[in-house]
Amino acid sequence: MKHTISVLVENHFGVLARVSGMFSARGYNIDSLCVGETEDPSASRMTVVVHGDDRVLEQIVKQLKKMVDVIEVIDLTRESYVERELVMIKVAADAARRSEVMEIATIFRAKVVDISPDAITVEVTGSEGKIKAFIDMMRPFGIRELVRTGRIAIARSAQENGAEGES
Amino acid sequence: MKHTISVLVENHFGVLARVSGMFSARGYNIDSLCVGETEDPSASRMTVVVHGDDRVLEQIVKQLKKMVDVIEVIDLTRESYVERELVMIKVAADAARRSEVMEIATIFRAKVVDISPDAITVEVTGSEGKIKAFIDMMRPFGIRELVRTGRIAIARSAQENGAEGES
Repeated sequence: MKHTISVLVENHFGVLARVSGMFSARGYNIDSLCVGETEDPSASRMTVVVHGDDRVLEQIVKQLKKMVDVIEVIDLTRESYVERELVMIKVAADAARRSEVMEIATIFRAKVVDISPDAITVEVTGSEGKIKAFIDMMRPFGIRELVRTGRIAIARSAQENGAEGES
Repeated sequence: MKHTISVLVENHFGVLARVSGMFSARGYNIDSLCVGETEDPSASRMTVVVHGDDRVLEQIVKQLKKMVDVIEVIDLTRESYVERELVMIKVAADAARRSEVMEIATIFRAKVVDISPDAITVEVTGSEGKIKAFIDMMRPFGIRELVRTGRIAIARSAQENGAEGES
């Protein structure tokens, strides 16, 4: 099963290597990982999407929590959360096909970030399903380059108040 | 100096831990790191933003290139590229202040992803400067949670043809 784990860590040397090593040492596959700054300059938040045996993951989470540099570990999988990913895709498109690419981009609320006589680069954000659908629509044009951030997630606020989020 | 390094790696166990360990072992600070899937299911692309001594970085890049699981390493810093980051921010906002948050969100082309009686969560993408400006505008409302993907980057296509990109 796929799990989305949010880990708040202190900004110390090697913490990223230690945390990611914790998963790989137990044969756990990391599908994606993001680590970025937070509001607190001394801490970073890692969002890790992993898949594998659920019992092994429970052990990993327990061990992560014991690490000196780890402040907080949340397995978002059991909570209601919003997930998003950012992707930039460069596709082959000359003047004749450009409007076709831009039409699809508009439907997906994607933004054009770069253009040249024979290529167009767009950015799109969304859930895993939306990103997959957009990539599938771009494939026939010829994908020259594709960069994904990996998933980030945030708990729904309605849930914090005991209600179910619907948006 | 800040560097944006793009590393294409084989999807093998522990490659993320080994690559990030390569930086930390040499006292190099990782500001952000993203690793996500690519068009090729056997490879992932890591985008690493680091800062530190330029000569040390040159050594790290050389050593990364020698790693078995590393397919390609590009220091984008010397090239013309588009950089983007995705951030989700949950701010305190009751009905009275909600429209104020949404007005700022519209200006930044941010999207509302979740709402509750006392909070609103928005997503925004952009360069480092835009993200910083947006966070600064959200701060007075009270930031409850902030998750960033870290930066991804893609070379401008105009440059590939020898011209300078302007978009």
